[in-house]
Amino acid sequence: MRNTFGNVFTLTTFGESHGAAVGGVVDGMPAGVEIDLDYIQHELDRRRPGQSRVTTSRNEPDRVELLSGVFEGRSTGAPIGFVVHNRNQHSKDYDNMRQLFRPSHADYTYFQKYGLRDHRGGGRSSARITISRCVGGALARLALRRLGVTVTAYTAQVGPVALERGYRHYDLTQAEGNIVRCPDAEKARQMEELILRVKEAGDTIGGIIGCVIQGCPVGLGEPEFGKLHAQLGAAMLSINAVKGFEYGEGFAGVTARGSEQNDVFESRDGHITTRTNHSGGIQGGISNGQDIYFRVAFKPVATILQPQHTVDLQGRPTMLDARGRHDPCVLPRAVPVVEAMAAMVILDHYLLNKTTRM
Amino acid sequence: MRNTFGNVFTLTTFGESHGAAVGGVVDGMPAGVEIDLDYIQHELDRRRPGQSRVTTSRNEPDRVELLSGVFEGRSTGAPIGFVVHNRNQHSKDYDNMRQLFRPSHADYTYFQKYGLRDHRGGGRSSARITISRCVGGALARLALRRLGVTVTAYTAQVGPVALERGYRHYDLTQAEGNIVRCPDAEKARQMEELILRVKEAGDTIGGIIGCVIQGCPVGLGEPEFGKLHAQLGAAMLSINAVKGFEYGEGFAGVTARGSEQNDVFESRDGHITTRTNHSGGIQGGISNGQDIYFRVAFKPVATILQPQHTVDLQGRPTMLDARGRHDPCVLPRAVPVVEAMAAMVILDHYLLNKTTRM
Amino acid sequence: MRNTFGNVFTLTTFGESHGAAVGGVVDGMPAGVEIDLDYIQHELDRRRPGQSRVTTSRNEPDRVELLSGVFEGRSTGAPIGFVVHNRNQHSKDYDNMRQLFRPSHADYTYFQKYGLRDHRGGGRSSARITISRCVGGALARLALRRLGVTVTAYTAQVGPVALERGYRHYDLTQAEGNIVRCPDAEKARQMEELILRVKEAGDTIGGIIGCVIQGCPVGLGEPEFGKLHAQLGAAMLSINAVKGFEYGEGFAGVTARGSEQNDVFESRDGHITTRTNHSGGIQGGISNGQDIYFRVAFKPVATILQPQHTVDLQGRPTMLDARGRHDPCVLPRAVPVVEAMAAMVILDHYLLNKTTRM
Amino acid sequence: MRNTFGNVFTLTTFGESHGAAVGGVVDGMPAGVEIDLDYIQHELDRRRPGQSRVTTSRNEPDRVELLSGVFEGRSTGAPIGFVVHNRNQHSKDYDNMRQLFRPSHADYTYFQKYGLRDHRGGGRSSARITISRCVGGALARLALRRLGVTVTAYTAQVGPVALERGYRHYDLTQAEGNIVRCPDAEKARQMEELILRVKEAGDTIGGIIGCVIQGCPVGLGEPEFGKLHAQLGAAMLSINAVKGFEYGEGFAGVTARGSEQNDVFESRDGHITTRTNHSGGIQGGISNGQDIYFRVAFKPVATILQPQHTVDLQGRPTMLDARGRHDPCVLPRAVPVVEAMAAMVILDHYLLNKTTRM
Repeated sequence: MRNTFGNVFTLTTFGESHGAAVGGVVDGMPAGVEIDLDYIQHELDRRRPGQSRVTTSRNEPDRVELLSGVFEGRSTGAPIGFVVHNRNQHSKDYDNMRQLFRPSHADYTYFQKYGLRDHRGGGRSSARITISRCVGGALARLALRRLGVTVTAYTAQVGPVALERGYRHYDLTQAEGNIVRCPDAEKARQMEELILRVKEAGDTIGGIIGCVIQGCPVGLGEPEFGKLHAQLGAAMLSINAVKGFEYGEGFAGVTARGSEQNDVFESRDGHITTRTNHSGGIQGGISNGQDIYFRVAFKPVATILQPQHTVDLQGRPTMLDARGRHDPCVLPRAVPVVEAMAAMVILDHYLLNKTTRM
Repeated sequence: MRNTFGNVFTLTTFGESHGAAVGGVVDGMPAGVEIDLDYIQHELDRRRPGQSRVTTSRNEPDRVELLSGVFEGRSTGAPIGFVVHNRNQHSKDYDNMRQLFRPSHADYTYFQKYGLRDHRGGGRSSARITISRCVGGALARLALRRLGVTVTAYTAQVGPVALERGYRHYDLTQAEGNIVRCPDAEKARQMEELILRVKEAGDTIGGIIGCVIQGCPVGLGEPEFGKLHAQLGAAMLSINAVKGFEYGEGFAGVTARGSEQNDVFESRDGHITTRTNHSGGIQGGISNGQDIYFRVAFKPVATILQPQHTVDLQGRPTMLDARGRHDPCVLPRAVPVVEAMAAMVILDHYLLNKTTRM
Repeated sequence: MRNTFGNVFTLTTFGESHGAAVGGVVDGMPAGVEIDLDYIQHELDRRRPGQSRVTTSRNEPDRVELLSGVFEGRSTGAPIGFVVHNRNQHSKDYDNMRQLFRPSHADYTYFQKYGLRDHRGGGRSSARITISRCVGGALARLALRRLGVTVTAYTAQVGPVALERGYRHYDLTQAEGNIVRCPDAEKARQMEELILRVKEAGDTIGGIIGCVIQGCPVGLGEPEFGKLHAQLGAAMLSINAVKGFEYGEGFAGVTARGSEQNDVFESRDGHITTRTNHSGGIQGGISNGQDIYFRVAFKPVATILQPQHTVDLQGRPTMLDARGRHDPCVLPRAVPVVEAMAAMVILDHYLLNKTTRM
Repeated sequence: MRNTFGNVFTLTTFGESHGAAVGGVVDGMPAGVEIDLDYIQHELDRRRPGQSRVTTSRNEPDRVELLSGVFEGRSTGAPIGFVVHNRNQHSKDYDNMRQLFRPSHADYTYFQKYGLRDHRGGGRSSARITISRCVGGALARLALRRLGVTVTAYTAQVGPVALERGYRHYDLTQAEGNIVRCPDAEKARQMEELILRVKEAGDTIGGIIGCVIQGCPVGLGEPEFGKLHAQLGAAMLSINAVKGFEYGEGFAGVTARGSEQNDVFESRDGHITTRTNHSGGIQGGISNGQDIYFRVAFKPVATILQPQHTVDLQGRPTMLDARGRHDPCVLPRAVPVVEAMAAMVILDHYLLNKTTRM
């Protein structure tokens, strides 16, 4: 409930930005799955800092080591422990933050909740801890491969620059071809330009990530509290900087009529399907075999390179003048995190669904 | 994980639309709380069908009986079992639905997942099962009373008719004064008109519910997966017909810059507070003492009184011609459900937070 | 963790001895299982008070009502809510206990923990709450029937009167043929005599229940904390009055050598089996296909019909003079409870084990 | 439920005997506790192989590294990840075991359950994985220190050599003074002799460990399934080679009468206590402030240095001739593991109990 996610396929994470390592334990990994270490490392590399000029220039190699649960290239059913050692930490950069609370960061709430905090780089609240999620997600995807399930996220909006149409109108494989991870090359260019402009101003900008899950079997999701979209939502909302989640027609759909938005059933090639997919692939909390698609809203990062008013631990007014290497926009690096979380939810529910009948 | 919600304060529910009863078990209710039965019944009455001309005309008295966990007017710390017996079921109305799948309902997915289904009134997927949530929420609110925490939801939008400003600009106590539960009387009138027009057309319409939690102590929420907003989001997304959740500035905030949206700290009356509250009262997943506010998107109800194409269990094309008494818009009756879920999340995290330190 | 038991097949219970009802919710019942109500009631009748002269003379009919999760005679996969209404409560009998703590009962600890207590008949700590376990267990057994798994408990010892040999030397089906539920008729007679003698003296006596699970598939049990015997042990230890649990050779086996106690593998009829079964059907926490057998120690019931020294709520010395109708020995009625708990553990692990591989 | 233990204070473990490392994650550690690394290492050293001539001669230094959750010597409330790297593995020693199943080990059940196994040194089923439990237990004890709770285990019996009296008659601090960890020097000498004799014969022997928890506050334990002794029992039964658990008078108490075994309340020094403590410090599943004491039965280790009949993976008869360095008796090294598990249960329930009231 705290640092563990999932029901029967679970990820437990640990680690802080400037501690010795981040890592975790994946439990409930099905036995016999081929473990492709290069693939896991590749997924981790996709979220790595320093990968392009729109991300932070910190250069963290972030090598993952699996410590258990794999034997002769296959998962054994035992828990998979893993670590990624922290390197290149400039803890001194944060010395001036020890006595004050950075606006819209977790400094104040952590201090109040725990009575003390690791102030270096955000400690446990740092986005660096999403590393563990990428490893867990990569493991889940190795298992999902066998089912033909794919999970694809992409940057759909940065500030006001937004894709104008739904995911079906784009070739999502193009997203990985540019540094903002947007499937439309022209929009990608505009997004990149915007991010660089914002960065130059010492400021930050938010956006929206879209995600599509294809090939998902019918029947995943557990009413009433384990509805598939509720679990996807919880997963996404637990990612740093996320402020909203919607699936299917989402918020925009509230203005439509039922007669416009219902997905009529029909038979195609001998099996039942829906003519449209306003529902987003989930009905009554259970996957219906159509594409599952959703959108995730990210706020602008709280760390800006401009002076800000704040208070110190005693409540006295002071100024914060942040320096260092920060992301002007988290979206490009958050794309693999969204995918990782979605993959874990799907695998968890695939396994759980096996307990539905004798 | 299926029909149980919460960590240390938990609600487990059971029941179907046309079964003998709906009900549940609240576990982890703090001992010694005064149990005001009238209040619980009152909360239940707020979601009851037949309460006005914008809701279904089904008339279900819905009397709650507490079966355990209360002694001489106080909670004992033992689990509180409760039932609401079903009455006034017109199961025959659903006979024609036995052999077909209603569009955008859970009929098809339940049938595929479980291999059989209770087709009467939606069975377990019926909105009727939110009764148990209202009882659980009312119990949570009785405990929260002592802390001075209030939870207030209201209809913020129906179809295109929307409040134009944030919650701070309205007297939310006015929401209960009209049948759509909107705090602005003029907007309420327009919403009511719209719903009646939609109803006349045999159609349905969606909308947005806003919710504010006030007086919440600092420190609630458990990084990293138990973030307070992630738990609120999961709670809301598990309500029937919900398609989206956002908190603080939400989706709209993605176009702002960090410098515009950061909540600067200041001291007021000797304690630390934030000048603005774009964050929505939660930072790093932990409550910061400011108002927690969020919005929930509801799709138009799937049951429309117009003929619809669909298929039967064998996949053969057929027509569905629904009759009976249905809600043209769920929002007025969903307001207490949103409050109930939010109250349970807050109490759960209040209790859990007590374990943070020795 | 409090009133919920199990991982994917779960039982949540509620109710007190003298409240309106006891009951519960079974979640995770596999869909499509034939629900034989007579069988469930029959299992409940086996634990019912007043069934013979060695049990309490209270006469409680204890009719179970299933409120949900069953449609046209089959489980639907939805949670099964159930209640058993309390009748024939002589709450007045307990008026004199309101101000004092009964020795070796839960009166003092409940009062200290919760700050108040329902003193009538032991409240939540009453053995009456095992009713819910019998219902849950009966449901589990209906599912296990399909697998050919049987669970058989029997009285192995009452006070010093003990079966002299292991379970294999008895026809366990004979246990149900006498009122103490011991498979050896002569021992049963001696046990009955002893219980009646003890009852006459206003005293109580303990004993040991044995249990055998046959036909259990290989592979059930989850290392490292979900070991099958650890879950069986937790289940048994949660039954009122239980003080010990052992499986396989148990405590007696500590004096043997490894060379004497190892179960050598051999092939029989084309499949692998063990020559002996000192292990009790579980190796490394996982069932190996042999009989699973264990023993459960019950203390003498705390309620005796003799004057006892005690203190009142203020700690002042006083005398307790209990009256009423009580069990001189719980074993005969605990046999079905042991079986019920064991059945739930096996079904839970059978389902969970389905998630081990893709 | 698999590799995670506890409710609000949890330990998740990973690792195999011959993998890269064993380790785990402690979540729910209260913030602000002083973390004494030397103490944790000391606890680990108590279970370390090669510490005396009655244990295996494998010499494993077993250095623990804490990777997170500690800042400037105090717990931060964040999860504490830790690893102990494996060294000195003679994996080749196990090559001949690849194709066969060792009697009374988990080889066969793991292979059947998972479809493959890491055969080296028992893999995940090795007693080596109790390392993680010792680290978790040491952390729990650092927190319990503040409450004055102590947990003391000792060897009470090896084969037929048994302490003749209850724990109160011994100075338990003497247990650490000899290599078998028995508080009676003469018995310790006899136990040592027996173990050496057994070892010489290439055989193994079991025994019983006793444990006492002193200074435990009143009120810990959660009816009905979270009873304190049920959780202690589950914890103990999850330790490798454990076959039985009893608390208070345990199995021996079944022959007593209620009038002999009830613990009469009295006032002493102004507070309520019991004259005797047959109950073992727990009534109705909740601690009553008296000493909590229990006993744990260990079977003789399955690895013996004598030829044994067995079968290979295809079920063909073969002989197993084990070599290498093994424990002739696990009890001396299991004493700290028993303490560790007990400490975690107590801390978990201490924290959980804080949620009982507002």
